[in-house]
Amino acid sequence: MQDLAPDELIRRTLAGERVPLARAISWVENEHPQASALLDACFGRTGRAFRLGITGPPGAGKSTLVTQLAKEYRARGETVAVVAVDPTSPFSGGALLGDRVRMNELSGDDGVFIRSMATRGSMGGLAVHTAQACDVLDAAGFERILIETVGVGQSELEVAQTADSTAVVLVPESGDAVQAMKAGLMEIADLFVINKSDRDGADRAGQAIRSALHLRARTSEWTIPVLLTAASIGRGVPELVETFERHLAWLTETGTLEKRRQQRLEQRLEVLIRELLWKDFRAQVPEGAWTEAVATLGDRRETPHRLAARLAGTGERATPD
Amino acid sequence: MQDLAPDELIRRTLAGERVPLARAISWVENEHPQASALLDACFGRTGRAFRLGITGPPGAGKSTLVTQLAKEYRARGETVAVVAVDPTSPFSGGALLGDRVRMNELSGDDGVFIRSMATRGSMGGLAVHTAQACDVLDAAGFERILIETVGVGQSELEVAQTADSTAVVLVPESGDAVQAMKAGLMEIADLFVINKSDRDGADRAGQAIRSALHLRARTSEWTIPVLLTAASIGRGVPELVETFERHLAWLTETGTLEKRRQQRLEQRLEVLIRELLWKDFRAQVPEGAWTEAVATLGDRRETPHRLAARLAGTGERATPD
Repeated sequence: MQDLAPDELIRRTLAGERVPLARAISWVENEHPQASALLDACFGRTGRAFRLGITGPPGAGKSTLVTQLAKEYRARGETVAVVAVDPTSPFSGGALLGDRVRMNELSGDDGVFIRSMATRGSMGGLAVHTAQACDVLDAAGFERILIETVGVGQSELEVAQTADSTAVVLVPESGDAVQAMKAGLMEIADLFVINKSDRDGADRAGQAIRSALHLRARTSEWTIPVLLTAASIGRGVPELVETFERHLAWLTETGTLEKRRQQRLEQRLEVLIRELLWKDFRAQVPEGAWTEAVATLGDRRETPHRLAARLAGTGERATPD
Repeated sequence: MQDLAPDELIRRTLAGERVPLARAISWVENEHPQASALLDACFGRTGRAFRLGITGPPGAGKSTLVTQLAKEYRARGETVAVVAVDPTSPFSGGALLGDRVRMNELSGDDGVFIRSMATRGSMGGLAVHTAQACDVLDAAGFERILIETVGVGQSELEVAQTADSTAVVLVPESGDAVQAMKAGLMEIADLFVINKSDRDGADRAGQAIRSALHLRARTSEWTIPVLLTAASIGRGVPELVETFERHLAWLTETGTLEKRRQQRLEQRLEVLIRELLWKDFRAQVPEGAWTEAVATLGDRRETPHRLAARLAGTGERATPD
């Protein structure tokens, strides 16, 4: 595989071959020189897969739920890719024994592909790399892409927002509803799942979320459902798949899907342009000049704003008049 | 305050007046037109305060610990500012009754200033705004700045990295050590705290962390301490303050502090320049041309990479040869 010509790797990735596919996603993740050629080749074939975000706080049982979702989709005959960008997910490495058992439930099935993404991207990099990996999986023919991400933190919310439809997963214990609202999860949820609903308080937690949802201004005709699941025993999973599919149908029929995807493409374009502008700028500043400039901050001869404006050549606009 | 002239607000902020100070930080947070003038005025007076990061997963008791730390520092005669960028922190609004009681312990003391930062910044914005708010507090004369941030998520780790010294707070329950390692917390910890150590398993959790630390390659002469605290009853807090102070002394003596601060200034300069470059670019592209360009992505006439390269005018370099 190491010696495979880029064109050949791209061709075999698009044919859905697993080993080239894994390597192709590594290209994306590591910003390999051939990554843009790969993504250019993939892009025209994207838009067919549905991308489903599964997010929520650590300990909500997201990985187990994702495993069960993948199995349910397979039972319905759909091919499934899992992209784990959750640093606490067993899919992202360091899995404990029990987690490995669960992962093994999915192995040996060519209709399932599991991939973790490193969480150490530069600013915006994580969401961009995730979206690009999903493009590759989409182009390779996977019909449903499950994006597992921990729902705490700005970058992770951005990852969740690359999905077509996003489920926020909580547990029955009180307080989660409040924390979810504070952490911005309320705004990104297309549906809510109270997982581990075999524990006490699941109905009450579901009611708390429904009440909180009622207080919000309705921004669309989609009424956000609240489902109860117990992923470890498979309970509620077929209903969750049904709900995702119902939402995807609604998104498609109302044109919301196209609008959302268009917005996300615009965001991705912005991130790529920002990166090119910075690289272009940095290539034009000699290393010594840059070090000297930074040193003027250290001894307070200059301030960050003034220095940035001067270096970026936008001093006229940045200086207050 | 609304009608205060910018110069007057800046002057009174630097004098440490609380109401102007609160407003000044809002300027930073909202990117007010006068924010850069404010920050320019503050920057020359920064570098005196020590900035202490307190991070860890939700539920680790960070806010209680921060409250106790602030009280301990006050008892030692230092002035303290608290910057909460943790969406689950009571300091960030939505406090429950018990949380408010704790916050009240700090109110009415002019030597303490508490401020929350919104978590909805654009890419890199959260860390930059936090660092800028700390600059204002530093310039206003606060001697210790406690930065509370939830330790899950890329942006939040970036916030923790704006501190001079960072404590990672965990709880005794097993699994946390593993999760901390996976979530990247291990790399940013200057010291570890097992909080809620009045619960079972604190000693064992401390040992697990120590073992994990021994496995790492030593990158410096600082041996990362692991402390046990029970912030709700004040236990271990004086020792934590002592350890922070010992680390700060070590950082100063070895020149590590200056090196770290220099690196962070360089990062901040980069973020500011990136923002200026993007604004400059965007101001030069007419709205209609932009919309049309984005539309070519929607119908796959163009790919994100090719379009970005063309728009950024860096097509020559971006095209693979």
